[in-house]
Amino acid sequence: MKYCSTCGHEVRQQIPEGDNRHRYVCVNCNTIHYQNPRIVAGTIAVWEGRVLLCRRAIEPRYGYWTLPAGYMENAETTVEAAARETREEALAEVNIEGLYSIIDVPHINQVHMFYRATLKDGKFGAGEESLESRLFALEDIPWKDISFPTVRKTLELFLEDVKKDTFGVHVHDIRRPIAATRTKDDL
Amino acid sequence: MKYCSTCGHEVRQQIPEGDNRHRYVCVNCNTIHYQNPRIVAGTIAVWEGRVLLCRRAIEPRYGYWTLPAGYMENAETTVEAAARETREEALAEVNIEGLYSIIDVPHINQVHMFYRATLKDGKFGAGEESLESRLFALEDIPWKDISFPTVRKTLELFLEDVKKDTFGVHVHDIRRPIAATRTKDDL
Repeated sequence: MKYCSTCGHEVRQQIPEGDNRHRYVCVNCNTIHYQNPRIVAGTIAVWEGRVLLCRRAIEPRYGYWTLPAGYMENAETTVEAAARETREEALAEVNIEGLYSIIDVPHINQVHMFYRATLKDGKFGAGEESLESRLFALEDIPWKDISFPTVRKTLELFLEDVKKDTFGVHVHDIRRPIAATRTKDDL
Repeated sequence: MKYCSTCGHEVRQQIPEGDNRHRYVCVNCNTIHYQNPRIVAGTIAVWEGRVLLCRRAIEPRYGYWTLPAGYMENAETTVEAAARETREEALAEVNIEGLYSIIDVPHINQVHMFYRATLKDGKFGAGEESLESRLFALEDIPWKDISFPTVRKTLELFLEDVKKDTFGVHVHDIRRPIAATRTKDDL
């Protein structure tokens, strides 16, 4: 951030009065521009015991498998965001069953939230950001080609819970950086 | 938003290619400025069966009672944010016991998350944003002077769960606008 989005003048980093952190503050209109973490919402959606995954058609992690998920938008709920992302990426309508995992990723200022879901009618496809979507039996999940640590963690938790036949709400944080990404040219 | 925070030129609302929503896009450098919901994190912290509330020293809802909570910051986890807000507003150190409520408030682009907690040593006080803090027995909670619907809902859920002696994770949304606020001059 270099300029004030309210008046267009320059911003400087300073600690505002009564605050204890550096913020971007406009030198002209004194607007304080706060920056806060973003929520990524998605689903772990099942149909006949299999889990719906999408293969990413965009960077980062082009070609890797992910649970359908994306940035929550203004004016929607986390449940709506999770269902919308599943519709957009996997062309699938879901019934949301319950909150499943909340994984903080503080080094990239994100909180990932996955809801358990079931497909409404078993239909799915590949949205614009997906190369393909597929239902995977739990023993066939493509572990070596999973997109993000939060997706891997959520799938691992889910497999454990399926064995126990009980589904809690799991709160975790992942602080490691993600592995080097495979680019389109590597495939 | 009127100006691009990257280059200082004007922004216009338009739907970027491949998107399906209006975004602020810079007319000069084409940067897309996404706007997303913010997380408010806090605690429902207890000591000897009583709940810690703070009376707000700031607007909105000056003079009303709240659970300690505030905007999550970059580079922290939701747990860290909840504990930090409790430290700042109630001068209290807590042990986080578990996620308790997630309440979407889509008309103001917020998600409120409260963690159950216990005070570490029973000590608390009034931080800069609080007029006072106090431990309330469950039968003495000041229902007519509660600050925000998400705080009221979390307290209501907590009382029900105390009766049942079981604490789940509760996902809700609150879509109504908050009641007209009392200002400093009314007190």
